[in-house]
Amino acid sequence: MTPVLYVVGLGPGNSEQVTAEARRALAGATDLLGYFPYVARAAALIEAGPGRSAPDESCPRGPNAQGYVPHAPVRHGSDNREELDRARHALTLALEGRLPVVVSGGDAGVFGMASAIFEAIDTGDPHWKTIDVRVIPGISAVLAASARLGAPLGGDFCVLSLSDNLKPWPVVARRLGLAAEAGLVIALYNPRSKSRPDQLDRAFALLRDILPPDTLIVFARAIGREDERVLSTTLAQARGEMADMSTLVMIGCAQTREIVRPGQESRIYTARSVS
Amino acid sequence: MTPVLYVVGLGPGNSEQVTAEARRALAGATDLLGYFPYVARAAALIEAGPGRSAPDESCPRGPNAQGYVPHAPVRHGSDNREELDRARHALTLALEGRLPVVVSGGDAGVFGMASAIFEAIDTGDPHWKTIDVRVIPGISAVLAASARLGAPLGGDFCVLSLSDNLKPWPVVARRLGLAAEAGLVIALYNPRSKSRPDQLDRAFALLRDILPPDTLIVFARAIGREDERVLSTTLAQARGEMADMSTLVMIGCAQTREIVRPGQESRIYTARSVS
Repeated sequence: MTPVLYVVGLGPGNSEQVTAEARRALAGATDLLGYFPYVARAAALIEAGPGRSAPDESCPRGPNAQGYVPHAPVRHGSDNREELDRARHALTLALEGRLPVVVSGGDAGVFGMASAIFEAIDTGDPHWKTIDVRVIPGISAVLAASARLGAPLGGDFCVLSLSDNLKPWPVVARRLGLAAEAGLVIALYNPRSKSRPDQLDRAFALLRDILPPDTLIVFARAIGREDERVLSTTLAQARGEMADMSTLVMIGCAQTREIVRPGQESRIYTARSVS
Repeated sequence: MTPVLYVVGLGPGNSEQVTAEARRALAGATDLLGYFPYVARAAALIEAGPGRSAPDESCPRGPNAQGYVPHAPVRHGSDNREELDRARHALTLALEGRLPVVVSGGDAGVFGMASAIFEAIDTGDPHWKTIDVRVIPGISAVLAASARLGAPLGGDFCVLSLSDNLKPWPVVARRLGLAAEAGLVIALYNPRSKSRPDQLDRAFALLRDILPPDTLIVFARAIGREDERVLSTTLAQARGEMADMSTLVMIGCAQTREIVRPGQESRIYTARSVS
């Protein structure tokens, strides 16, 4: 029987934003692997039940093939920055005939676990190439933030990670500059962490040389979670301390506008036409 | 009572990739507005039932507040390129006290209807600003294609429309060139249509001056639908006729690789580390 490994995007944090397909993949898991809080969310989703998506032949070896009974897959929560080890562990479990599900927040293909899984396959045990890796897409943080704000991605856009853990800072700075020159809306993941407290201010300084001071900047924190928070300002006023590890920073382009509404939250959108 | 308008992303075409939140919004609709095929898909989803997401207080005026009974909202299917008229129609219906739901394929914020709705609000009847527009994110075509292929978006990426309907070709060409110079993976929406048969070949020609000939190019057609088709090649070999209106074209970067698997479909991923 072909070994199977699921890589599942859990969406931004609101269980209503999880797809039926993702719930079904979770329902068959014998093992959950991922960053601790995502493994906990996946376990909670399994406990809540798969909803209308009962396990079926696409989860052949899950314990629930005969109908839904909440089960408790083995949880292998691990810390961030251990992605390759986690990927190898999941691939090993799959070859042993288990049904591991690797989980990411948002979409696993956007700065999530999907790439690490294929990196491990490409550079590891040749038998891993026989594993049927099924990536299940999820609502990424950038899509959730965009919907929450209005339509800031209305035109061409890019998604960049500001972290220099996996690429040197000059590459980050060069990409930011070229994206701004191209007139793209920029969604910045990983804008700030304890070990990188100053990079977002450096990014804003760099962008001030290219973009006008009234360029809209939005800090969208923990969208879809109970502690979500939105702050919009201008490039002139933006400061790194307005973001934390859970914030996605959106940098508007020349077509990005704010609709101010008396007594109500404003909405941000990017007009579709570029002249 | 505050007038409400939903803007819902239906995902790429597979009903299992629709979120519970989207199904719930649809369940309350009195009117469906959108491009004909998306209105038909939304109506089919309503007919199938909302699954575990019964309508509740967030759909206060839907006909199904007491439990699910399939209903038939009024369908206002319209042609493409009529986005602003459609947006104004939906806003008018919302002010009349109906519960219109505007639908897009994929995610409504990514080359979908969300931006057109806010454009109409920003430039139209001041009363439209009082409408509570709720954008419900969906699995965008680029996320669905990425999951289907492996993990081609593993690093920084951008999403560009190749259409020059809403922006002049020199802007398209400049953005493409800068994105390639930045080393981003590029996801191209709207690569080709009957009225624009040659632009994708012009795009490849332009990219050949910047990127190496062995750069991976993937044509991902109708992902998530029954007629899906995937073709991968290199920039040297890529030709515009490999795409049609339903194709998303992915242009790899220096870190994008193909894992060839004997007797099985290959997988495409972008390694996370950039040196």
